[in-house]
Amino acid sequence: MRMQDLIEKKRDRKELTRDEIAFLIRGYTRDEIPDYQMAAWLMAGFLNGLTESETQALVEEMLYSGVVLTHDHIHEPKVDKHSTGGVGDKTSLVIAPVAAACGVAVPMISGRALAHTGGTLDKLEAIPGFRTDLSLIEFKAVLKRCGLALIGQTKEIAPADRKLYALRDLTATVPFRPFMCASIMSKKLAEGIDGLVLDVKTGNGAFMREYEDARKLAEMMASLGRRMGKRIVALITDMNQPLGRWVGNAVETMEAIETLQGDLESDFAGLCLELAAQMIVVGEIEIDMNRARSRARNAITSGGALERFRYCIEAQGGDPRVLDDPKLLPQARRASTIIADRTGYVTGIETGEIGRVVMDWGGGRRCLEGAIDYSVGLYIHAKLGDRVKIGDPIITAHYNDESRLDEMQRRLRSAYRVEEAAPHLEPLIKTII
Amino acid sequence: MRMQDLIEKKRDRKELTRDEIAFLIRGYTRDEIPDYQMAAWLMAGFLNGLTESETQALVEEMLYSGVVLTHDHIHEPKVDKHSTGGVGDKTSLVIAPVAAACGVAVPMISGRALAHTGGTLDKLEAIPGFRTDLSLIEFKAVLKRCGLALIGQTKEIAPADRKLYALRDLTATVPFRPFMCASIMSKKLAEGIDGLVLDVKTGNGAFMREYEDARKLAEMMASLGRRMGKRIVALITDMNQPLGRWVGNAVETMEAIETLQGDLESDFAGLCLELAAQMIVVGEIEIDMNRARSRARNAITSGGALERFRYCIEAQGGDPRVLDDPKLLPQARRASTIIADRTGYVTGIETGEIGRVVMDWGGGRRCLEGAIDYSVGLYIHAKLGDRVKIGDPIITAHYNDESRLDEMQRRLRSAYRVEEAAPHLEPLIKTII
Repeated sequence: MRMQDLIEKKRDRKELTRDEIAFLIRGYTRDEIPDYQMAAWLMAGFLNGLTESETQALVEEMLYSGVVLTHDHIHEPKVDKHSTGGVGDKTSLVIAPVAAACGVAVPMISGRALAHTGGTLDKLEAIPGFRTDLSLIEFKAVLKRCGLALIGQTKEIAPADRKLYALRDLTATVPFRPFMCASIMSKKLAEGIDGLVLDVKTGNGAFMREYEDARKLAEMMASLGRRMGKRIVALITDMNQPLGRWVGNAVETMEAIETLQGDLESDFAGLCLELAAQMIVVGEIEIDMNRARSRARNAITSGGALERFRYCIEAQGGDPRVLDDPKLLPQARRASTIIADRTGYVTGIETGEIGRVVMDWGGGRRCLEGAIDYSVGLYIHAKLGDRVKIGDPIITAHYNDESRLDEMQRRLRSAYRVEEAAPHLEPLIKTII
Repeated sequence: MRMQDLIEKKRDRKELTRDEIAFLIRGYTRDEIPDYQMAAWLMAGFLNGLTESETQALVEEMLYSGVVLTHDHIHEPKVDKHSTGGVGDKTSLVIAPVAAACGVAVPMISGRALAHTGGTLDKLEAIPGFRTDLSLIEFKAVLKRCGLALIGQTKEIAPADRKLYALRDLTATVPFRPFMCASIMSKKLAEGIDGLVLDVKTGNGAFMREYEDARKLAEMMASLGRRMGKRIVALITDMNQPLGRWVGNAVETMEAIETLQGDLESDFAGLCLELAAQMIVVGEIEIDMNRARSRARNAITSGGALERFRYCIEAQGGDPRVLDDPKLLPQARRASTIIADRTGYVTGIETGEIGRVVMDWGGGRRCLEGAIDYSVGLYIHAKLGDRVKIGDPIITAHYNDESRLDEMQRRLRSAYRVEEAAPHLEPLIKTII
């Protein structure tokens, strides 16, 4: 088999066989196929499309390019959640302990902040001492002990995806559903899970602004996972405003802790309970969603979920006192409040821009190697549909770099649209697949 | 400017500006843009197409990626000929001396054999001592002295094309008209010519089997060259059988010498006279094609063209005695004749396969670095439309590797179709653009 023939085949809109996809992915992972040939193939695939069976083969070959974990020593159902990324989305920090407290084992391998979206790993690393770089052996041991373990992608997990993602990023071949699907599913299925809850974000703070794009991706991931024998639920949720009140790293960790401590009033807490309940149903702990929801709620009100989180922080080297004293999390030195300059209803928030302000102020990264200022964060006073009067606070910024204050205030203010008529509000959860 | 944005633009079917094409080609030539990004862009261009102005910019940027020769010291019109490649096509060896003898300066930079087609350089190098690797200074001096000079592409000429061609070859992006056009025209225009005669081959021995593809390429090259102020004539000629009687390297050189010595009966000699006459008209030595044809014919019958070739061989280090004694060219040790196994008319010849037999028997190369056995060659007894009886010779093979004789005989025999009814014969020259 020659790589140029496989490029030619995809260029000419022909379907690759299972063996050809295997040749492609295995050869590339072993550095036998050069980047330039893979880049040409990726672009041909992007423009000519992949069939369902090509996508299935791609997912499986990427999955088996590395270690696929098994947890035979753990008798609980193994279920994880994956979000396609948004602004203020700290649900993992809440639902992993909640699901664990309800009898689900949560082997969670997460990503870092990228572009305007935050990453679970960075929020966890805001906790002093917390290690996300556990070995797979340590990971399995923490999972066994705590019922949850939270780490980053290791070299052993889906190495094909690691190489391919870096190449796609530089060759304008990222936003293509079969590749996105293969990237997500190969990493998640390597965790050794029985089931998966997908939170596919759509809106102006998500990678997929259009609902239809999000729906198609959700359906593709769900049907792929199901064909591989996994129980999958996919939620399509709104990302037209930041989730919850805080955007940043340490500040989101603090908000997650407050939720685990029993603050269940926010849109964020509502989504957490829903996602956790889905994990409980996917894990077949309950078959009825209402019973699963109250079980999740009880895990919080009883303090069981918080206790699980404490165990997990301790097991992964972090300082569990942050649960009692949030001042132990990194704190920004300065704060500044942006106020409304007209009276009316908040009818639009440029959510991506909110995320980019945090990123540009040091709280995110433009490339995977960048360093992060964990303490930078924004508090969202005014959410969609809120009525504000001139002078009311909209956002309070917590920051260190004073030199960029003017620019950031201007950007944050223009990210808000305030109008006379109250907006129509979309439900947070749009569809369940 | 970022390369990934230019890839994205072409991916999304947008037109690149002149500056963007310049960034692309200059960056790639200087190794600032990596192969994998160029490969993705090439595939996006291949699948989404290039506009006329993108193609124009591509040709000009590739041309000016290197040295563009000028010949101010030469007062004759500078005209070259380029063929898109065929089997048995040794016209350059005849028409360069003929045109030179008629007052045209021919600064010819040629290519090597590739795939099933032969290359002018390899045929010239079959002459003992002949150097095709002259420096550009030597090239200009030989051109001044002899009226023709015949060399290979140097590092200074269109380096962008050299890099791009190697990449295209490995990424299935060769057969795309704008890229083919840019590759040919950037190299030819770098020779410092006033005009160019293009011989675009079509048929089962050409890279473009379909007439329409050849016509479109010819028109694209002609209009591009004309927009750059050059006089261009493009002929579309038939390549459904080998041109002339011999296919190989030394044997084709010998056939070219015989033609220069006055053997003007063959289809090959006819095409040579026509192409040379076009060069004479393009060079404005004559304005009437009939007068140009007889001028070309006289250059041969008078011995003037042969004399020019002798000067050129001497100037480029070759042994001019090959013109008097063809036995000084490399000779194969063995010969074997394939005979007709039925009576009838030759109605079809798999011309590409004839070329591949020569290549596989050592007379060609699969990749640009391969070595060549100059002595291997085939003599074509039976051409299209010839009547053959059982036992009549079809092809005589001259070869060295006896171990492949059975296979090659079988392949050559199956390359011939002999049927009862005489075929309709296509004219050799199909169209003049």
